[in-house]
Amino acid sequence: MMQKLVLAYSGGLDTSYCAIYLSKELGYEVHAITVNTGGFNDEDIKGIEKRALELGVSSYTCVNAVESYYDSCVKYLIYGNVLKNHTYPLSVSAERTIQAQEIANYANQINADAIAHGSTGAGNDQVRFDVIFHILCPQIDIITPIRDLKLSREAEIAYLKANGVDMDFEKAAYSVNKGLWGTSVGGKETLTSHQNLPEEAFTNQLQKSINDQQDIALHFKKGELIGVNNKEFSHPTQAIQYLETLAAPFAIGRDIHVGDTIVGIKGRVGFEAAAALITIKAHHLLEKHTLSKFQLQVKTQLAENYGTWLHEALFLDPVMRDMEAFLNASQNTVNGTVFVTLKPYRFILNGISSPNDLMASKYGSYGEMNLAWSGDDVKGYSKIVSNSLKIYHQINQSY
Amino acid sequence: MMQKLVLAYSGGLDTSYCAIYLSKELGYEVHAITVNTGGFNDEDIKGIEKRALELGVSSYTCVNAVESYYDSCVKYLIYGNVLKNHTYPLSVSAERTIQAQEIANYANQINADAIAHGSTGAGNDQVRFDVIFHILCPQIDIITPIRDLKLSREAEIAYLKANGVDMDFEKAAYSVNKGLWGTSVGGKETLTSHQNLPEEAFTNQLQKSINDQQDIALHFKKGELIGVNNKEFSHPTQAIQYLETLAAPFAIGRDIHVGDTIVGIKGRVGFEAAAALITIKAHHLLEKHTLSKFQLQVKTQLAENYGTWLHEALFLDPVMRDMEAFLNASQNTVNGTVFVTLKPYRFILNGISSPNDLMASKYGSYGEMNLAWSGDDVKGYSKIVSNSLKIYHQINQSY
Amino acid sequence: MMQKLVLAYSGGLDTSYCAIYLSKELGYEVHAITVNTGGFNDEDIKGIEKRALELGVSSYTCVNAVESYYDSCVKYLIYGNVLKNHTYPLSVSAERTIQAQEIANYANQINADAIAHGSTGAGNDQVRFDVIFHILCPQIDIITPIRDLKLSREAEIAYLKANGVDMDFEKAAYSVNKGLWGTSVGGKETLTSHQNLPEEAFTNQLQKSINDQQDIALHFKKGELIGVNNKEFSHPTQAIQYLETLAAPFAIGRDIHVGDTIVGIKGRVGFEAAAALITIKAHHLLEKHTLSKFQLQVKTQLAENYGTWLHEALFLDPVMRDMEAFLNASQNTVNGTVFVTLKPYRFILNGISSPNDLMASKYGSYGEMNLAWSGDDVKGYSKIVSNSLKIYHQINQSY
Amino acid sequence: MMQKLVLAYSGGLDTSYCAIYLSKELGYEVHAITVNTGGFNDEDIKGIEKRALELGVSSYTCVNAVESYYDSCVKYLIYGNVLKNHTYPLSVSAERTIQAQEIANYANQINADAIAHGSTGAGNDQVRFDVIFHILCPQIDIITPIRDLKLSREAEIAYLKANGVDMDFEKAAYSVNKGLWGTSVGGKETLTSHQNLPEEAFTNQLQKSINDQQDIALHFKKGELIGVNNKEFSHPTQAIQYLETLAAPFAIGRDIHVGDTIVGIKGRVGFEAAAALITIKAHHLLEKHTLSKFQLQVKTQLAENYGTWLHEALFLDPVMRDMEAFLNASQNTVNGTVFVTLKPYRFILNGISSPNDLMASKYGSYGEMNLAWSGDDVKGYSKIVSNSLKIYHQINQSY
Repeated sequence: MMQKLVLAYSGGLDTSYCAIYLSKELGYEVHAITVNTGGFNDEDIKGIEKRALELGVSSYTCVNAVESYYDSCVKYLIYGNVLKNHTYPLSVSAERTIQAQEIANYANQINADAIAHGSTGAGNDQVRFDVIFHILCPQIDIITPIRDLKLSREAEIAYLKANGVDMDFEKAAYSVNKGLWGTSVGGKETLTSHQNLPEEAFTNQLQKSINDQQDIALHFKKGELIGVNNKEFSHPTQAIQYLETLAAPFAIGRDIHVGDTIVGIKGRVGFEAAAALITIKAHHLLEKHTLSKFQLQVKTQLAENYGTWLHEALFLDPVMRDMEAFLNASQNTVNGTVFVTLKPYRFILNGISSPNDLMASKYGSYGEMNLAWSGDDVKGYSKIVSNSLKIYHQINQSY
Repeated sequence: MMQKLVLAYSGGLDTSYCAIYLSKELGYEVHAITVNTGGFNDEDIKGIEKRALELGVSSYTCVNAVESYYDSCVKYLIYGNVLKNHTYPLSVSAERTIQAQEIANYANQINADAIAHGSTGAGNDQVRFDVIFHILCPQIDIITPIRDLKLSREAEIAYLKANGVDMDFEKAAYSVNKGLWGTSVGGKETLTSHQNLPEEAFTNQLQKSINDQQDIALHFKKGELIGVNNKEFSHPTQAIQYLETLAAPFAIGRDIHVGDTIVGIKGRVGFEAAAALITIKAHHLLEKHTLSKFQLQVKTQLAENYGTWLHEALFLDPVMRDMEAFLNASQNTVNGTVFVTLKPYRFILNGISSPNDLMASKYGSYGEMNLAWSGDDVKGYSKIVSNSLKIYHQINQSY
Repeated sequence: MMQKLVLAYSGGLDTSYCAIYLSKELGYEVHAITVNTGGFNDEDIKGIEKRALELGVSSYTCVNAVESYYDSCVKYLIYGNVLKNHTYPLSVSAERTIQAQEIANYANQINADAIAHGSTGAGNDQVRFDVIFHILCPQIDIITPIRDLKLSREAEIAYLKANGVDMDFEKAAYSVNKGLWGTSVGGKETLTSHQNLPEEAFTNQLQKSINDQQDIALHFKKGELIGVNNKEFSHPTQAIQYLETLAAPFAIGRDIHVGDTIVGIKGRVGFEAAAALITIKAHHLLEKHTLSKFQLQVKTQLAENYGTWLHEALFLDPVMRDMEAFLNASQNTVNGTVFVTLKPYRFILNGISSPNDLMASKYGSYGEMNLAWSGDDVKGYSKIVSNSLKIYHQINQSY
Repeated sequence: MMQKLVLAYSGGLDTSYCAIYLSKELGYEVHAITVNTGGFNDEDIKGIEKRALELGVSSYTCVNAVESYYDSCVKYLIYGNVLKNHTYPLSVSAERTIQAQEIANYANQINADAIAHGSTGAGNDQVRFDVIFHILCPQIDIITPIRDLKLSREAEIAYLKANGVDMDFEKAAYSVNKGLWGTSVGGKETLTSHQNLPEEAFTNQLQKSINDQQDIALHFKKGELIGVNNKEFSHPTQAIQYLETLAAPFAIGRDIHVGDTIVGIKGRVGFEAAAALITIKAHHLLEKHTLSKFQLQVKTQLAENYGTWLHEALFLDPVMRDMEAFLNASQNTVNGTVFVTLKPYRFILNGISSPNDLMASKYGSYGEMNLAWSGDDVKGYSKIVSNSLKIYHQINQSY
């Protein structure tokens, strides 16, 4: 009996090569699967499925994981205002994590003997797939033809042609990965340290005139984006996608991320993530109005770890669940509306309105006449706060 | 013999009131002092001195503290990429800290019996002055007429007029504080939660057309900005001030900070800090290329504390010196040039060039063919990294 | 109509003075309340009630808060293995916190006009009471006669005698505070830096011979001590109290805590806390076997803050609830038995047995032949882990 | 020409096997090296050298690294009060790190083509050697016969015998590793989760009667142990070794460490480290008296990382140097004497005496009449500290 293999299939050159190679050379019964995290529309998926079937796979499955992706991961990236190295919304890291989990579940479900992914040996994704497969299906072999064979693009194309596959093999100028939480753009300039990506590298071009602007209102409930401009949505992913339709034409959210890859070298990648950046920054502003100083402080600290460990393929560490419990608890009061103005290439946070706004207290406003304490109270406070340092410097004659 | 009092004098209404009140009502010999942290030019200082002498102070002193301000504090804010709540360069917090120290030193030097500051009872500044005075001159009384008397603006003006003082008492629409590290702008809209400051509230208006842009190069040596556009400066403060002359006409660096005041309420304040924000963001990018992952991680963590404790009047805690030792050590490799494009209201970090750039390794580039390791090495890595979680989930049957 | 005042009453000299002074001099209707956190038995409480009524209070209430004390606070100190400065179980800090809350609730319930506590101006407790009262009953006045009047012990006694009160006024050599989570012992030697407390200062004397020892087994379920020596209890407080009866005769758990008080000076206090220390150390050992590396790491970090903020009167900060959510989540797998040997003045953790023990994996044992990975896997791991540092030192020619 | 190989040689079975195997089977010119981190006395070294030469190595070198070991690593473990998982002084981790560095330096110096170490594939040490060799001598091959061949003990012995080597091949009941900073003891019971090591497993047996005790005084200067009982030493390693001679006969410092190995499984190992534990605990107590609250807090946090990364083979990460700069800075005031009583199996910290003792302030003592502040000051402090939480709970009607 043939051995069953689940192939993580995206429709690109590498995984198309794998589809043929795995069945023809290695003799597997290949079951292709695509996990859609928001980067593909229905037509895209139809095209991918068609291609897969043309390559002769035994079955093709597409899992629509947009909502489970959000519920299990993106939500916490918002709660934690997670931007890796203060810049990058971690879209690819998060997508691979959920994709690997869905693929592993599928492989377990159909009793697969092997799982294959098309990662090369040079990047982060291979580790994310490997690690999650090792954990979730330790009994299943992991097969990685592209990593193992180190084939050139040309060799892959030649092999496919020799096997009668006639696809558009033209290489895109940039490698692009799209999903709910942003689009990454790599190639050419990002391989240097000093060059920025040119306008045309991005998938969202500016569709507004330089003086256009648009005021929008984002509605949050317990930390989640549930509505935009008084329009409510049945799931936060829809609010995010709607926000993207408003903000993308302004070419908002472009930047370059520089960071440490799992394999130890520095990596540099461009991205465009209008909805993700606006959502995170708006959410963070709302938190500054509604959370205590120490909540903000501890959240920041935990979220750094949350992002790093997600990035480094450690999403299944139980500590992630514990941090999610913290983050969940912290969002009770993160309710209200954030007012944002969209402008070409940028956005402005104008302010917020919230029933939990700690600025709206009857006890006093900053810099204004205070009602809740007296100057003498502050004198006492200053005295007590000084005590330890007064003693320190007196004893040590530091000054 | 009259008791000597040192008055922190800025030339404004509150401290002018103090100058008269302290000598006339309380009988002190008043020695006025202004500590310039970059907000005053020579002419400003002449005006302030003239005013002070007209008010009858016994002496007037101006301390030019721009360089010592940078050397003792701003430098570390750059090393730490410190932006309070990810937004605010902490300009006022840092200024008050250095001003209080200079004033305390002066008071000790002239054997003053008292020190007076013009803070009200509503804000952060009173605590910063109080705490540093308690520590550096515990034997000297602290006098705060404005806080104690809770006088209205009108009452202060009436008192000054009654004492023959004829100054321009018109209230500015916004309260502005300027220094090397930025200008804060408070009032009207910042007292609400939902309104942004209008264009005219800012001191730097856009002086470029909407399509103008300018490419600049920032040169860093061991983490300090030492040159701009191939022009070297004898002290980093000059490079910062030069950068400000380039960037301010683009109206760059405006934002609103929302945060926790020392007295426990939330505060909201606008600011414009072109040079500060560009310097920090450029410095941070250079660090992403030149520091190890763990250096970046620990620096971020420490810098959060450094900023918070500076903000909360704890600059003289010895832990601040220990953290400065860490920050100093971390900057050895932070050398090179950062390429920036200035645009109206924003700036773009294009990239960097550095002899210490960790991306420029002979061992491989991200996502490209790797020279320093094999796919099998990564397989081994993934295997080992998975072990603990594989065991965890096997034992606990979590999946 | 007389104003109602709630008096935190312990039966000691200070609060007895308050009972008379507040009704007689200040004219309040005094409602005394004692919150028992495990330090008083039934007879103690009867005596305290009798004394209170003799002093003429309008009513006396005793709240048995042992279980709510555990449920709201002690439980998390165990989950977090909290020992302040790696030594002190924070018994007094925790007790004052729960006592203040119970008193505030009572005051709100009977519509009191004022609350009085007997703290002096020298310590931590005053802040804990003040802060919690300010938060939970901001409309109620706080009265602190002992702090305000700065009376000597002798003056208090004279006043009580003059008012016909005839109690045993002899001063104990040490000030002792007892509760579920330990007994603090302060005085004489603890006021120096160099002297240890003598044997007789402690309330639990050694009742075993020097060679005695006893093996015990502690049973934990989701991080809580639910049984001892196969005996199950209906509430963890009973297990803790039973453990105390076993361990106290061995004079286990004595130490001296040196730390920073809220008022800024260093404080030094002795304590004996057999059950608390054994429970925490046993719990921590069980966690080392059952939690992931990162769970242990993040827990340690959060627990440091949890302890510090509890100590510093910030228990009602919402961040504490968020950290409790984290801690709760982390305890799912902390199940099993810890084997302990009690010896005079010390105890030994022998080991554990747990269904969630991560050492009991089929994948291999440390230092033994490994089944789950090969030497080549580790070589790959070492290679990948070295990459970033190899690059760093190559680029920087550091070695 | 033969290829030069440097062999990390300890004189045990594994490295003796390597010595023969590497020259005879692989044809290397073998240069054996032992790096003494305090575990070997002169006689031991003579024996090891003799054995090496008998095995036919081309040269033998012993590096006495006790002082460099202390200066580059142990010192910081003391400054940071580093006990892994609050228990283990990290002796083996630290030793391997310094040994690997010395060996790499030697290999670079003699232009070796290869380095061999005798680690198996099951533990931490292999990673420490691999990683440091990859970094310090990336051009040199790493050879690990024991890991690669997975030989049984018996097979190694048979091979050695067949090659005419006649050594004492009897297996010790426990695997013991001794150095300046402690002795690890593994085997039998440590492979279970529930059993403690028996008395006889330890190398230091109790040589005192059960009622013996000894008072000692430890003198610290800037955080370093420079003297014991008024006896000064020319290097802290001598003070530590002298302290060991006093404390070891009391069988002090035994415990079992349970923790996460680098390879992902949990490990359990016994140790005895009298001098290390007493030094760290005494040093920590001195710090509690001489450092500010925030110094203690940040030190604890950093030291956790320092220990973890040392353990995980990351000693050469530049962040370790940055943390050392912090730790160095923090030790300025850590001066004075700590009074300790040694008892069988345990020790008591009685107290300290220090010119930098922050308890010895003229400003007041804890719980006593305070001179530096008033009850009103504390009232003000409590008021201000309450503000933010009062507002939070009022706005959110949490109570």
